[in-house]
Amino acid sequence: MAAHVAGKLQGSDHTELSGIAELALAEPQELSFLINEHDLEIAKTTKAAAVLINDSLAGVSLPMVWVSNVPEAINLVLELFAQPPEFEPGIHPSATIAPDAILGTNVSVGANVVVEDRTTVGEGSVLQAGCYLGHDCIVGQQCRIAPGVIVTERTEIGNRVVLGENVVIGSQGFGYRRRDGQQRHIPHLGAVRIGDDVEIGAGTCVDRAKFGFTVIGRGTKIDNLASIANNVRIGEDCLIAAQAGIAGSARLGDRVVFGGQVGVRDNITIADGVIAGARSAIHHDLPSGVIVLGVPALERRQVLREQAVLRRLPQWPARIKKLEKRLTDLESAADHC
Amino acid sequence: MAAHVAGKLQGSDHTELSGIAELALAEPQELSFLINEHDLEIAKTTKAAAVLINDSLAGVSLPMVWVSNVPEAINLVLELFAQPPEFEPGIHPSATIAPDAILGTNVSVGANVVVEDRTTVGEGSVLQAGCYLGHDCIVGQQCRIAPGVIVTERTEIGNRVVLGENVVIGSQGFGYRRRDGQQRHIPHLGAVRIGDDVEIGAGTCVDRAKFGFTVIGRGTKIDNLASIANNVRIGEDCLIAAQAGIAGSARLGDRVVFGGQVGVRDNITIADGVIAGARSAIHHDLPSGVIVLGVPALERRQVLREQAVLRRLPQWPARIKKLEKRLTDLESAADHC
Amino acid sequence: MAAHVAGKLQGSDHTELSGIAELALAEPQELSFLINEHDLEIAKTTKAAAVLINDSLAGVSLPMVWVSNVPEAINLVLELFAQPPEFEPGIHPSATIAPDAILGTNVSVGANVVVEDRTTVGEGSVLQAGCYLGHDCIVGQQCRIAPGVIVTERTEIGNRVVLGENVVIGSQGFGYRRRDGQQRHIPHLGAVRIGDDVEIGAGTCVDRAKFGFTVIGRGTKIDNLASIANNVRIGEDCLIAAQAGIAGSARLGDRVVFGGQVGVRDNITIADGVIAGARSAIHHDLPSGVIVLGVPALERRQVLREQAVLRRLPQWPARIKKLEKRLTDLESAADHC
Repeated sequence: MAAHVAGKLQGSDHTELSGIAELALAEPQELSFLINEHDLEIAKTTKAAAVLINDSLAGVSLPMVWVSNVPEAINLVLELFAQPPEFEPGIHPSATIAPDAILGTNVSVGANVVVEDRTTVGEGSVLQAGCYLGHDCIVGQQCRIAPGVIVTERTEIGNRVVLGENVVIGSQGFGYRRRDGQQRHIPHLGAVRIGDDVEIGAGTCVDRAKFGFTVIGRGTKIDNLASIANNVRIGEDCLIAAQAGIAGSARLGDRVVFGGQVGVRDNITIADGVIAGARSAIHHDLPSGVIVLGVPALERRQVLREQAVLRRLPQWPARIKKLEKRLTDLESAADHC
Repeated sequence: MAAHVAGKLQGSDHTELSGIAELALAEPQELSFLINEHDLEIAKTTKAAAVLINDSLAGVSLPMVWVSNVPEAINLVLELFAQPPEFEPGIHPSATIAPDAILGTNVSVGANVVVEDRTTVGEGSVLQAGCYLGHDCIVGQQCRIAPGVIVTERTEIGNRVVLGENVVIGSQGFGYRRRDGQQRHIPHLGAVRIGDDVEIGAGTCVDRAKFGFTVIGRGTKIDNLASIANNVRIGEDCLIAAQAGIAGSARLGDRVVFGGQVGVRDNITIADGVIAGARSAIHHDLPSGVIVLGVPALERRQVLREQAVLRRLPQWPARIKKLEKRLTDLESAADHC
Repeated sequence: MAAHVAGKLQGSDHTELSGIAELALAEPQELSFLINEHDLEIAKTTKAAAVLINDSLAGVSLPMVWVSNVPEAINLVLELFAQPPEFEPGIHPSATIAPDAILGTNVSVGANVVVEDRTTVGEGSVLQAGCYLGHDCIVGQQCRIAPGVIVTERTEIGNRVVLGENVVIGSQGFGYRRRDGQQRHIPHLGAVRIGDDVEIGAGTCVDRAKFGFTVIGRGTKIDNLASIANNVRIGEDCLIAAQAGIAGSARLGDRVVFGGQVGVRDNITIADGVIAGARSAIHHDLPSGVIVLGVPALERRQVLREQAVLRRLPQWPARIKKLEKRLTDLESAADHC
């Protein structure tokens, strides 16, 4: 374990570890960790079998693994303890699979799953209880489609894709046209295409395209409850945090990173590597690599400077009033000169 | 087709068209479109059978349809290619329909659908796989209730209503009353009433009323992942974009238009025809027809003026400091006068 | 009824009441209410059997119940009319219950419910149609799990908990680590723990912890479509309005109150009794009892002062320009002195 996190072990290397927990809650077979000096006191009484500790701390007589970055080491340790969930291959008797759907080898189909006509599911993929695949979909290999997911017709999904609980892929786009005094829905004849290794969080909705595809690029990860509108194209290896709203036909490049609750206007282009802070509202095209913030989103430095000035703003009216008074005094003095 | 979009055809009028696609992706039987001059080069090599093109562009030797507004013409063309999804009338054997529920003629009921006691569904409506209708609901004619939709007891739904995937209608309102040191839920005895031709996007939740009805007026369209609280009343023909949050007992008039992620405070009234930009937070009553923006939402002109001043703000402290310095110099000079 | 709301009755006390409704809509057996003087005219023609009326109003010849706070009295009356929904104990034949799951007495299991291995459900709890409980979950007594809810493995749920329609508990956290040029998911081995009397609104998603538990404390109420990230800890008796987004490992104390669409940064601590206005974005630790607003969230007084200054901002450039002009005039006059 120490080797896995590039740490230096102090103490016995024969300890069996069963999991990881905070210092105060750790059981005798568990690993724990110490990030702040504040927790040194707790460390002295922990039941933990061993402790991940920062290079810069000292003074606890437990088996220790000295590392340069404890949070990162925790993430590495979690990989050691992880046991991939096991889904038995086979089709639950309550599932409804269309006769012309094609399921690959070792596919696992849970209770109440529905797979419609002509849809194919690749080797080793898991359709958890109650998920729904519309007709003419393609699902790749080793995917996990969580309980309650709705995938509508003609969606294309790559390999190793994870769709979280109650995700919706292929909902109708929000496009209307006024005719005879009423809003009529514009037909959305396209679909959604999801690249390899994409992961989408619980409750997120991705609309189908008017024509062609709404695209989520290879390796991109999207958090919970985001709304991705019709004809959006997201590049590769992006990270989109929770509750983002991306409007119709917006384009994101590769490696774009969004904090939570970001909004993106329709039809704009965000180039590779852009980073947008939480709650940013992006109204304009953004060039490669910029870091933005705010509503409307501007370069981070500018926003922080404006905020600093804004914080001092309430003292200004008095200051200007005083200036005006002094000036008036001077002027009247000058008149009497 | 040219007639349908009020365009002028150049080239053969015997071409068979199978769909619409971007210039670079179009197949030989597909229609494409040219909006920007930038794409003129691509147009020269497209495989498309014909191209929608703006009046003001020229110079490509393909069958052309000259129109004054290409995006609008695309929307019109999509209507030509649209093939309404076909749902076979009948009840899937896995559906659970209460004995006293009443289904009209030509109703289509998908796999795992549940319809509870005394609920009625009008002629030609479609209940897609896995949707749920609670007891004593009324669903009109020609509705589409998408997979995963939850409609709770006593909901009233008009004709031609579309409820998108995983929509929830009739959830409990968020109303609590402190009693004996604890928050107790206030009973919400009312329900939800949805007018004709309403369409609601995937994942949106509409709470039931404390008494009477939460109302979504005829023809109103709501996008994905919006939250509509108890006793809200939305008028007719409104357009509410994604992730709007409308708090309890707020009232919206007719033809109100919201951009994405708008918030509305509880108990306020927004008159007919109000337009609120994306991310607006509306805290006060708004009169008919105003266009608002910002947090708190103010008239758009004022917000844009404030933002312009705000952008120049960081240069001001230096300017005022300089004024103070010059004034001090003058004052001391005056003293020596 | 008058006693229940601490009101003073005027008129017959033998009237039978069947429900509550607005003045204009009330039926002859219904109670109504009068809050504004504006409604006095309507009150004269209402069909209502009786009216809740504010102490300060007078002049209507209907049976009256004079109270000091009509909205509060309405909430109290709703409790009188409330009839708790009845769910018959028993297991619907379409449900899929693992052989080693344990259901307490009087548990009600609806159509298409799935309960996985080793999960236990306490006495009197209701699993509504189509909800899903993963393996090794514990659900307490008298809970209501609404239609479409997804609860994943190892979740712990207390007594009298309500999970609204399409809620997701235990989704994967949004935690990734870059390795070999790709974002890899960090295993989330923990789970979610929900205290007694918690109520969670429709569509809300709560992520499982990396290790240990994401915790929602006893008595806390969360509205619709909120996103609660991995390892968040929310204290007791909090009220979190719709569409809140709380990032990873943030901690909230007891009795915290959030308006709608609030955002909370990861890893920060919000102490007991903090109140955050709608749309606040909390970036820093907050001490006990403060009232905050804005982006970034600051003390309410400061934000309102800044907003007031901001509103007058557009008049300032002219004012400063004028000052500069006057000063220049004076300076040149002084030079000629």
